[in-house]
Amino acid sequence: MNTMQATVFHGVNDIRVDTVPRPTAGPGEAVIRITATTICGTDLHIVRGEYPVKPGLIIGHEPVGVIEELGAGVTGYRVGERVLVGAITPCGQCRACLSGQSSQCGHGSGCEAMGGWRFGNTIDGAQAEYLLVPFAQANLAKIPDEVTDEQVVLLADIASTGFGGAESAGIKIGDAVVIFAQGPIGLCATVGAKLMGATMIIAVDGDESRLEMARRMGADEVINYRECDAVAKVLKLTGGGADVAIEALGTQGTFEQCLRCLRPGGTLSSLGVYSGKLEIPYEAYAAGLGDHRIVSTLCPGGKERMRRLINVVQSGRFDPTMLVTHRFPLADIKQGYELFGSRADGVLKILITP
Amino acid sequence: MNTMQATVFHGVNDIRVDTVPRPTAGPGEAVIRITATTICGTDLHIVRGEYPVKPGLIIGHEPVGVIEELGAGVTGYRVGERVLVGAITPCGQCRACLSGQSSQCGHGSGCEAMGGWRFGNTIDGAQAEYLLVPFAQANLAKIPDEVTDEQVVLLADIASTGFGGAESAGIKIGDAVVIFAQGPIGLCATVGAKLMGATMIIAVDGDESRLEMARRMGADEVINYRECDAVAKVLKLTGGGADVAIEALGTQGTFEQCLRCLRPGGTLSSLGVYSGKLEIPYEAYAAGLGDHRIVSTLCPGGKERMRRLINVVQSGRFDPTMLVTHRFPLADIKQGYELFGSRADGVLKILITP
Amino acid sequence: MNTMQATVFHGVNDIRVDTVPRPTAGPGEAVIRITATTICGTDLHIVRGEYPVKPGLIIGHEPVGVIEELGAGVTGYRVGERVLVGAITPCGQCRACLSGQSSQCGHGSGCEAMGGWRFGNTIDGAQAEYLLVPFAQANLAKIPDEVTDEQVVLLADIASTGFGGAESAGIKIGDAVVIFAQGPIGLCATVGAKLMGATMIIAVDGDESRLEMARRMGADEVINYRECDAVAKVLKLTGGGADVAIEALGTQGTFEQCLRCLRPGGTLSSLGVYSGKLEIPYEAYAAGLGDHRIVSTLCPGGKERMRRLINVVQSGRFDPTMLVTHRFPLADIKQGYELFGSRADGVLKILITP
Amino acid sequence: MNTMQATVFHGVNDIRVDTVPRPTAGPGEAVIRITATTICGTDLHIVRGEYPVKPGLIIGHEPVGVIEELGAGVTGYRVGERVLVGAITPCGQCRACLSGQSSQCGHGSGCEAMGGWRFGNTIDGAQAEYLLVPFAQANLAKIPDEVTDEQVVLLADIASTGFGGAESAGIKIGDAVVIFAQGPIGLCATVGAKLMGATMIIAVDGDESRLEMARRMGADEVINYRECDAVAKVLKLTGGGADVAIEALGTQGTFEQCLRCLRPGGTLSSLGVYSGKLEIPYEAYAAGLGDHRIVSTLCPGGKERMRRLINVVQSGRFDPTMLVTHRFPLADIKQGYELFGSRADGVLKILITP
Repeated sequence: MNTMQATVFHGVNDIRVDTVPRPTAGPGEAVIRITATTICGTDLHIVRGEYPVKPGLIIGHEPVGVIEELGAGVTGYRVGERVLVGAITPCGQCRACLSGQSSQCGHGSGCEAMGGWRFGNTIDGAQAEYLLVPFAQANLAKIPDEVTDEQVVLLADIASTGFGGAESAGIKIGDAVVIFAQGPIGLCATVGAKLMGATMIIAVDGDESRLEMARRMGADEVINYRECDAVAKVLKLTGGGADVAIEALGTQGTFEQCLRCLRPGGTLSSLGVYSGKLEIPYEAYAAGLGDHRIVSTLCPGGKERMRRLINVVQSGRFDPTMLVTHRFPLADIKQGYELFGSRADGVLKILITP
Repeated sequence: MNTMQATVFHGVNDIRVDTVPRPTAGPGEAVIRITATTICGTDLHIVRGEYPVKPGLIIGHEPVGVIEELGAGVTGYRVGERVLVGAITPCGQCRACLSGQSSQCGHGSGCEAMGGWRFGNTIDGAQAEYLLVPFAQANLAKIPDEVTDEQVVLLADIASTGFGGAESAGIKIGDAVVIFAQGPIGLCATVGAKLMGATMIIAVDGDESRLEMARRMGADEVINYRECDAVAKVLKLTGGGADVAIEALGTQGTFEQCLRCLRPGGTLSSLGVYSGKLEIPYEAYAAGLGDHRIVSTLCPGGKERMRRLINVVQSGRFDPTMLVTHRFPLADIKQGYELFGSRADGVLKILITP
Repeated sequence: MNTMQATVFHGVNDIRVDTVPRPTAGPGEAVIRITATTICGTDLHIVRGEYPVKPGLIIGHEPVGVIEELGAGVTGYRVGERVLVGAITPCGQCRACLSGQSSQCGHGSGCEAMGGWRFGNTIDGAQAEYLLVPFAQANLAKIPDEVTDEQVVLLADIASTGFGGAESAGIKIGDAVVIFAQGPIGLCATVGAKLMGATMIIAVDGDESRLEMARRMGADEVINYRECDAVAKVLKLTGGGADVAIEALGTQGTFEQCLRCLRPGGTLSSLGVYSGKLEIPYEAYAAGLGDHRIVSTLCPGGKERMRRLINVVQSGRFDPTMLVTHRFPLADIKQGYELFGSRADGVLKILITP
Repeated sequence: MNTMQATVFHGVNDIRVDTVPRPTAGPGEAVIRITATTICGTDLHIVRGEYPVKPGLIIGHEPVGVIEELGAGVTGYRVGERVLVGAITPCGQCRACLSGQSSQCGHGSGCEAMGGWRFGNTIDGAQAEYLLVPFAQANLAKIPDEVTDEQVVLLADIASTGFGGAESAGIKIGDAVVIFAQGPIGLCATVGAKLMGATMIIAVDGDESRLEMARRMGADEVINYRECDAVAKVLKLTGGGADVAIEALGTQGTFEQCLRCLRPGGTLSSLGVYSGKLEIPYEAYAAGLGDHRIVSTLCPGGKERMRRLINVVQSGRFDPTMLVTHRFPLADIKQGYELFGSRADGVLKILITP
């Protein structure tokens, strides 16, 4: 009754589905019963020890569920309502949030790098039967009856991030946009570019099945970088350079190729998580005189963001379920991690249901 | 009569004031008789062979003068009018110009890195008695009677560039801004930050006289990087990071320190010209998750830009003559180059008068 | 040989297809042989005497054709190339153009209301066999071989205007947008809203066939204002108000309803041409405290704008030929005007071919 | 002990300083002991019955004070700290707030016109000894020791509103800006224009002492509309129209003159509160074809906004105490209202101290 099943990080390459205490809601908080979640590339980094979290932490940051308990002061909601919560949970009331940069939320202080990313990072996460949601007033997005849990679970992180990469770049009607890497986030960036009116969308990857999915998601052209010089091909297709290049992998190679694909005055929109050093090839950067912009985007969160993304799905503009290739119950989540980590069997996203 | 004196690049470390043919104006062009010009750091790069131009080229790109001849089709001007011409001369009619990125002007083609920089780069420049101005309709800015040549000659490049660094960063009322390097462009960036409403302006340099000038230009705080850890001091003064950091030197060190000075979500505005590799310290970049923006700006040009900058001077908001430390006639320009290159005698900008 | 057929305005309700001299190209100009054009609502206003032009003027402002002659100084083009020219022909070199507001082009002066609209207004227009194009370097947009004349002729004005209404409003992914009136421009505004990522697009009109076309163009909901209270329905569909309301008719009624449909902080984007007084219902305006924005947009022109719009068509995002309901040869253009003025036979746009 | 003195609205033209219960702080709330407040033009509207509030309400919305009590969940503050609270108190967590339009805060619902204005409107206000602050986490701005209460009390409303008018207009370096009416808000708009880099600031009023103050606040030119045709003079001074016109009175006359002062493509920024009908003179509006923008701004609030405004004062950019012309203790506030309403004795702002 007061316990639940949850995916607990015990140490590098050691996660287990444990029985742990169920959370309860303090003032301003809510508890939701998880009905759908998924595994993210960032979770893999955590499990592999590439991104450090404390042992004992429940991981996962993409929650869909039903309100189980509402803490004092949370208004406008009822127990039993279906809700989507973003991967990032801004407080709405700190300096960063009030400055419109809520992903860098620094509740209680000013502004903190990645401060809005709490689930499965600094507090218990979503790969569990129940989830404690902080700042619930700002973060519970109601799901309309016509929309299923599966349709919205990918909005919490990958759609919000991918679209965010398109939005931060300021894509305009008629833009030429190239997206490097067509994993889940890159595919969502491709969708985002289409939603914003880009008319030459070029998807680059080395995996034909991902390029095929990119076409279905709206790419006008696809490039398999194993088969040609991707930069040269983009320069040719765009007649001198893309307006926007979106980096969706997190490597020096893709970052650099993005910059080389740009026209002078173009924008590199970076979504990847980098490790090691990151170099700007200065000649591709016109030695600093090319009026280039390099923007990076951490997944936008909060209930208004989620409301808008739900609208995108509800309007039929985007069907995220196309990206769900596999399903596992929470009890078997370790198998899910193995499959996701192996990239076998054409896996894109895995649906986890408690 | 048909000849003039001009500063000609003959080869590395070899410039001479030669007698050369005077230019004449073709359709859409104008010839101006130069009354004031100056030497720019970029000119030094050229003379030293660090930026290649063709031998035989007249160098210099900061022209103030009097209209001597108007080519066919140039309307609204009269011979004898005093004009300022920007260092960058956009055509106004190519793809880049019509997209609002006229510094990357690609007249006759699409868009070309630095394409708008022609004077002393791809066509003859301003360190001469006469100058041929291309796309004159878009580039001749009339100087009001109340304003002297000396007051506006620094607008052509350094003020336009420095202010541009503040503008590209999107400085807002109440921002904290740090500017690394207080040479002429950095000083103008300091002025630009003040003009846009920054309320904590921090100037960094290693030269006390430049820091003193920074104070006079509007810096609220100055930091001599030789005497303390500049990044640590900026983080302390700003309570966690500047909203904007402006790089005005063009080195890995200043670029990197700029990034380290930023709050999450902050903007690095780059004005420097880089050589060699340029690295993003990924941990200061929050591994790509800090919502940082890195923007670079090439000097904005065109007569409307110059008109606005003249207004800034005319309104008394900014007195560029404070930056003029030395004067030479054109005949002695080589001495000017030597002094400017040596950084001796507190030199900031040198006025050249034919 | 030196004459041509052209639609000449002789006086109110008196246009005739006359034989007139063929234009020749001066410096910076071009002559194109018209292959397709159309009739605009503004042309009707002219013919009816509601918008004054000088007798003797050739009317029409939506030209597609083949380059017949290039004036001195126009580079990068060849005689025989197919081109689209926008209804608005900015010079690219005046204060307004250099400020990014080229529709208000004031060549030779500063900035002039509607100064960029020249064809069929201040100079001879496009309903003729040949057309003189001013500022050709800035205004000739090449048409790719794969795209037909008919596919692009509606881009010159109605698509550029309609999309412009969506762009000026700053539509974002997930916005709710209502468009009042679904004539050709309103339909293009509907397309523009879709292109920019609006996910609840509501089209309002009183004509069922236009509402049907609105659905085909991307409207999620349509409202026949004759059958219900349009404002009430929009408020209900949007849960409290649209983010953006686009006015595409030019009447007090539609303007006012737009404002009443907005959420606080929303944007009214006005495309209509108004006559008589225009009132802001102050209570719908929250007495000035609602953070509303009211923006108006004159058709953006210039070759870069046209290039982007051609890309929209070429990418298959938008098929303007769906709006072409009738065709007439130039010789029979008066019949076209009668039909277009009568709104009979489901007429939307009429293709005119010399 | 549990009571306090407060300015209570009893009915039209009937306010009294009554003894009422002292508030206590619930979860997320705070109580501050007021040390300084002021009377606003909006308060006059309330007293005169022009803006309806409920009898029994304590009025006033410009609070400076000391934290007396912190409700559950408010973190990062201590009792005894000096704070400024904005006139508008956004929750930070509703749809409007999360969309960056926090003045239209609709806590518990979506978005509500003027929803963020609570003090002295929908909840008890600041002209009292103690004040209950809702959403304290988002609204308590700490005051540095170096800054006095008197220096910041005008930031809560008039500076935030006046600067907001400049900000919403998007003023750029070199803009020409005209501000109609130089009451406290208009004067702050003048300051805002200066802070953002306008270089031709024209202040219009009919009161010479206010025009004199406008000059001290940064106006380059002042126009007494009683002595000349203000529109004609602005058109002459700006060479064809201002880039931005700020309306700071709330009448048809000033609104209309603002529009007539604009260049095509210019922006009218409206700060006034209008009653009765508001008309757009359509010919000054270029019949809808002038690319005009009309923006309205409700005072921005929240602690981050106040923090920035405090920085403006602390940096010496703006000295609001110049606008304080009179002082009254709370007990004599009725005399203050009489003086303020009469506009006698050169009154601009009145400091009230409990």
